[in-house]
Amino acid sequence: MPYYIGDVIKDEKRLVARTPEKFRETGIDVKLKTVVTDVDPEERVVRLSDGSILTYEILVMATGTTPFLPPMPGVDLEGVFTLKRLTDAIRIKTYIRERQCRKALIVGAGFIGMEMCEALRSLGIETEVVHRGTMPVNRWDPEFLKVIMEELKRNEVSFLTRVEMQSIEKGKDFRLRLNTNKGPLEADLILMALGVKPNVRLAAGMGLQIGKTGAIQVNFAQRTSLEGVYAVGDCCEVYHRISRQWVHIPLGDIANKQGRVAGANIGGSSLIFPGVVGAQSFRIFKLEVAATGLGEREAAANGFDPVSTIVWGNALAGPMPGNTQVGIKLLADRSTGKLLGAQAVGEAGAVSRINTLSCALWNEMVLDEIGYLDLAYAPPFSSAWDPIHMAAQGLLRQIRGQ
Amino acid sequence: MPYYIGDVIKDEKRLVARTPEKFRETGIDVKLKTVVTDVDPEERVVRLSDGSILTYEILVMATGTTPFLPPMPGVDLEGVFTLKRLTDAIRIKTYIRERQCRKALIVGAGFIGMEMCEALRSLGIETEVVHRGTMPVNRWDPEFLKVIMEELKRNEVSFLTRVEMQSIEKGKDFRLRLNTNKGPLEADLILMALGVKPNVRLAAGMGLQIGKTGAIQVNFAQRTSLEGVYAVGDCCEVYHRISRQWVHIPLGDIANKQGRVAGANIGGSSLIFPGVVGAQSFRIFKLEVAATGLGEREAAANGFDPVSTIVWGNALAGPMPGNTQVGIKLLADRSTGKLLGAQAVGEAGAVSRINTLSCALWNEMVLDEIGYLDLAYAPPFSSAWDPIHMAAQGLLRQIRGQ
Repeated sequence: MPYYIGDVIKDEKRLVARTPEKFRETGIDVKLKTVVTDVDPEERVVRLSDGSILTYEILVMATGTTPFLPPMPGVDLEGVFTLKRLTDAIRIKTYIRERQCRKALIVGAGFIGMEMCEALRSLGIETEVVHRGTMPVNRWDPEFLKVIMEELKRNEVSFLTRVEMQSIEKGKDFRLRLNTNKGPLEADLILMALGVKPNVRLAAGMGLQIGKTGAIQVNFAQRTSLEGVYAVGDCCEVYHRISRQWVHIPLGDIANKQGRVAGANIGGSSLIFPGVVGAQSFRIFKLEVAATGLGEREAAANGFDPVSTIVWGNALAGPMPGNTQVGIKLLADRSTGKLLGAQAVGEAGAVSRINTLSCALWNEMVLDEIGYLDLAYAPPFSSAWDPIHMAAQGLLRQIRGQ
Repeated sequence: MPYYIGDVIKDEKRLVARTPEKFRETGIDVKLKTVVTDVDPEERVVRLSDGSILTYEILVMATGTTPFLPPMPGVDLEGVFTLKRLTDAIRIKTYIRERQCRKALIVGAGFIGMEMCEALRSLGIETEVVHRGTMPVNRWDPEFLKVIMEELKRNEVSFLTRVEMQSIEKGKDFRLRLNTNKGPLEADLILMALGVKPNVRLAAGMGLQIGKTGAIQVNFAQRTSLEGVYAVGDCCEVYHRISRQWVHIPLGDIANKQGRVAGANIGGSSLIFPGVVGAQSFRIFKLEVAATGLGEREAAANGFDPVSTIVWGNALAGPMPGNTQVGIKLLADRSTGKLLGAQAVGEAGAVSRINTLSCALWNEMVLDEIGYLDLAYAPPFSSAWDPIHMAAQGLLRQIRGQ
């Protein structure tokens, strides 16, 4: 009888009450609130913090990630949060409600930071992003970052740049004070959104190979370097089809796919995880922001000769009511004309176009063909020449010096 | 100096005034309201209805299509329209405004018929679709047609089936009366939307090869069977990448692409039109309706062994506000697992998914890979497992008898 060890849902009483039972029906013993201290892969034994042991034939590492917290005084104060688990979200919501939170600082300007701007503003909370650099989400082109910054401004999110944090302490006008090189910043809530690192303590302790990325190495069947041990989700690496490197991209859809691949292989079917192309998206207020494939730096680091173009086109056909502009950036290899990456920003039609371009990347399409790709044209949805076509043809002309 | 002969824009005064001039700047002589009576390809001469002739080195046939009109008394009465050109649209709008049109009959239930339901209802005109068959737009699965029928009903469009038309005459309560096997139907406006046929009189007269479809045969450079003669747009065939047949799909985006390909080749560059996969879409009120690739009948006719599945999933991630269901149908070949076609219907996310699947079809992807395709997941845009993934995996299980 397989075990499932986890604490994912420990604070949600209804789920805790239902889940172990639900699993038991299918012959799975779910042990919640259980900590594994170490694993002995020779004996195939897992040791728990209460001193007991569990034996296994197959072990699946799904240890996820931990949000990065700077070693700084005050990060343990009440009102300082990270956002990773469902329980984090519940604790933040409870805190906001019970403490009548008026102002929040978001430290970090990645995905979580950007998404939380909307969540906090929609509750009427004054919101300020505090960032070490000068621009958010650096995966995107500066031209698109300007659009994101305007969207933040339009929604009254302030954005403080080049901030170095020093400490957090009790505040005066608000509950907390973040001391920085730019002076003290006060707020009732501070969200530390500085990224995550894979949890590999157990994996490293039992001798699993850890990749250059710091995450657990796996193969295409999600097997680790030790027989009988699989790894899935944010704690392990994933194969990037464009760079042909093993990378660490902690995203929910990738984790789901890896789980299913591991499950099939454990269950006796052969199933290969074909890898990813780096598709990603988030929404910030009204704006869709999406990207796929490689950026200039990664492309060059992998030996490609990247050239790029940005076009702005109509998300719908020109004269349609409610039309908005969508910006598409395409990046291709100069010598082969192969698509290497794409980015898109707009109030509509950005994510859908990145999905189509992800499929193009998956299949190693060249610009010539992308410029003539057959899309489902109708005026409510696009122009006869979609911005995808225009960008591909424009980039091709650029490569050919026309 | 090349000539451009056309009447596309003859009724729009502003355009007529501007266009020939605009072209003249680029060295093109535009002759509007000019009818070509025949072409002598030996002499490379075009004869006009006023008896004059024009010589050519290169001739581009862009004669388009004509809406099909049944040979029935009364189709020439005032208030009976077809909708093909910009001028048709202007005439219909003028008629509706000047005659205070209260009721319309749409004869035919294809794309134009469906799109016009929304246009007419949005003007407050009582609208009835009159159809020979029992369901509209037969490219789509009956399960999706039911959804379309419900959308028509919700918007108070009535749909009369198995209608055989007999004649049109002056009406009593309304301006016109359509006599049918189901009795007389009265309305102020009758739109005949029964499909189109390619205009090939000139082409056939000068000896161009006409394909099985009735449209002009071309090759991948848009060249016809006669040297120096090209054909583009709705009057010619196009290569279907999935059936590997030359087909007739009169759509604006295809016409645009063919025009550009012909232009490049005429101008001395080599450019190939890589063909289509049959992507198509329309909106009917709130509903997006889209399809790509082959249906069951076409697939079987081309030797494939089609299997299909329909899944309904969330257009956005489960708990997002404003979420709606999107239905995806996938069709694949049993022996190879290759995708052959797809259809989608829903208030959101149908067209975008068909675009992604069109790219998958273009690249001859198999279900195994489509089930793990990397899409830009974020809760505002999709679930971690998109309906595309679920449909591909479901269809694969069906093929494998799991």
